[in-house]
Amino acid sequence: MPFEYLPLPGAPVGQLDTPALVIDMDVAEKNISRLQKWANRNKMGVRPHSKTHKTPLFAHKQMAAGAIGICCAKVGEAEVMVAGGVKEILIANQIVGATKIARLVALANDASITVAVDDAANVRDLSAAASAAGREIGVIVEVDTGMHRCGVDGGAATRKLAKLIASSPGLRFDGVMGYEGHVVAQRDFEERKTEATAAARALVEAAEDLRKAGLPCKIVSAGGTGTYNITGTVKGITDLQCGSYIFMDGDYLEVFKDFSPALSVLATVISRPVKGRAVTDAGIKAISVDRGLPKVIGIEGAKVAGLSEEHGRLEVSGAAEKLKVGDKVSLLPMHGDTTINLYSHYACVRKGKLEAMVEIAGRGRSR
Amino acid sequence: MPFEYLPLPGAPVGQLDTPALVIDMDVAEKNISRLQKWANRNKMGVRPHSKTHKTPLFAHKQMAAGAIGICCAKVGEAEVMVAGGVKEILIANQIVGATKIARLVALANDASITVAVDDAANVRDLSAAASAAGREIGVIVEVDTGMHRCGVDGGAATRKLAKLIASSPGLRFDGVMGYEGHVVAQRDFEERKTEATAAARALVEAAEDLRKAGLPCKIVSAGGTGTYNITGTVKGITDLQCGSYIFMDGDYLEVFKDFSPALSVLATVISRPVKGRAVTDAGIKAISVDRGLPKVIGIEGAKVAGLSEEHGRLEVSGAAEKLKVGDKVSLLPMHGDTTINLYSHYACVRKGKLEAMVEIAGRGRSR
Repeated sequence: MPFEYLPLPGAPVGQLDTPALVIDMDVAEKNISRLQKWANRNKMGVRPHSKTHKTPLFAHKQMAAGAIGICCAKVGEAEVMVAGGVKEILIANQIVGATKIARLVALANDASITVAVDDAANVRDLSAAASAAGREIGVIVEVDTGMHRCGVDGGAATRKLAKLIASSPGLRFDGVMGYEGHVVAQRDFEERKTEATAAARALVEAAEDLRKAGLPCKIVSAGGTGTYNITGTVKGITDLQCGSYIFMDGDYLEVFKDFSPALSVLATVISRPVKGRAVTDAGIKAISVDRGLPKVIGIEGAKVAGLSEEHGRLEVSGAAEKLKVGDKVSLLPMHGDTTINLYSHYACVRKGKLEAMVEIAGRGRSR
Repeated sequence: MPFEYLPLPGAPVGQLDTPALVIDMDVAEKNISRLQKWANRNKMGVRPHSKTHKTPLFAHKQMAAGAIGICCAKVGEAEVMVAGGVKEILIANQIVGATKIARLVALANDASITVAVDDAANVRDLSAAASAAGREIGVIVEVDTGMHRCGVDGGAATRKLAKLIASSPGLRFDGVMGYEGHVVAQRDFEERKTEATAAARALVEAAEDLRKAGLPCKIVSAGGTGTYNITGTVKGITDLQCGSYIFMDGDYLEVFKDFSPALSVLATVISRPVKGRAVTDAGIKAISVDRGLPKVIGIEGAKVAGLSEEHGRLEVSGAAEKLKVGDKVSLLPMHGDTTINLYSHYACVRKGKLEAMVEIAGRGRSR
């Protein structure tokens, strides 16, 4: 495959070739620092989810700020993090199948690895692979705290799995996790608070129940960006799994403005066929639409009317009618994680100039 | 970046690690052959759009079957095709900006390159770069035949651009194109026929008008998968730009069954938390949802209820209740092009066994 054209550091952002995935590094670093400071004040651990950035550079910035470890969704992402030097990994997901479990166990040579489970047969497979390799894997039970995706109910089902883990060779019982994904994007703060608090309390209760049964829970992990300051104040929760806060996105900005948008897609106007319409080079292969159409940043009278595969269609009026072929347009994606997953590189900029093109090494590693 | 785990040829498809992007090679080759045979019978050129497969292997199969050239949407895709040995490229899109134009002109060292335009300043930029490099680039005018995205109206605007191209050093005027993207997925055949015929006739009329003005049009290119047998029968059209026909997808299968589905995503059940629900490892980072949720293939009583980033939620009833953690599930994406763009490799299978893992070299090359 031919190498991609990559610009040199120092290039003004407006000169970047497009579509480009632009990160304002000052803003991203401020978001990292802001969450960590909040957590420090509240004596809460931060275990940022790397499924957002998929890149060791940002994981290291989070660790340097004070994070206690990094979450991953897939073994392929964890491989990238461990190869990039991250030493403390929590895979907040079920890892199923002989191939993936073998890779998971191999990671324990270079890092501390903990994985979530919600199934007894999966625990036995993990135990067999870890003990055969002479390695120890941390395991936590995923509790369904109301999202109704994966996870078992707190109480008897959790106890049964925890006991199995604790008695399985090669495994170390580390505790529980529960992700309140059903409430993180709830727009109303009071509703979000009520529901997220209930979810976090259910998880803490499951942990207390295990402790009574002689199964100490080092990890009681939960939380997303939208619930950091709710879940993060519930006594008994040990750490937060926030991911999106590092860059924010258009959807989360409709939840709150506690963190600032660091991510945008730079596009070029490639066609200006008629009054009222401008077409850019950023379609749905450059900006995800699973949470809605992106927003034009800073151009009065310009609005994204639709994206096709390779084109963005803008409605323009007033001052925006001045847009001409070759002009650059900044767009705010509604969903950062899925937009980032389309790109091979970040254009990391500071004060309007390119600092570095950074490979998104975990991109597409969904296995 | 650590290498991705890739299975060896000969592996049964059910043993592939997941999520895997699976191509049934026999079906894909039959689709290629079927379109080409239809085109041969109708004395129509086929210029398949590589934005679907993004991979030289499939472009070469299309050329070997009789295609007259390959379409690309972006310079980055064309670079992959030319590096892979494809010699006849039509970029069916506007290429804007000094960087991309320099790369476009460089491609003319190794292949015949034609590009679409709809703007006079863009023509001047292309001419300056091509003549400075001592190269010749073919240029066609994109005519808006009813889609109202890019393109100029047939008639005076097209004539003006064509004359400018024909008189510009370094450029060769090759003709016109028009993409009837607004009708290719129209479900009703008669409506599709009426609208696509009108679009194709508008393009042919624009070409006739140019010929009268002394500007011969070698290329009068149009058509998508859904209109191949409509646009492809309009006298004066020279070639079809179909892309999706090679693999088909769930959305196109609702238009017609002229081609067969060759593409699926293999997923693994990773959680079976309660009766009625199974969760897979294929979320929206593994299957695009811009045309709707994927369909479960061949399992009675299993239905995709929703995808989150890293998880697919299935509703299961009846026989599908037997699904257990570790079982594999085949899913039909509704949109092939955007699903393919998420993966680094195809798992190319034949008669149920892996033939090769093939790199999707054009993936993510949206610049």
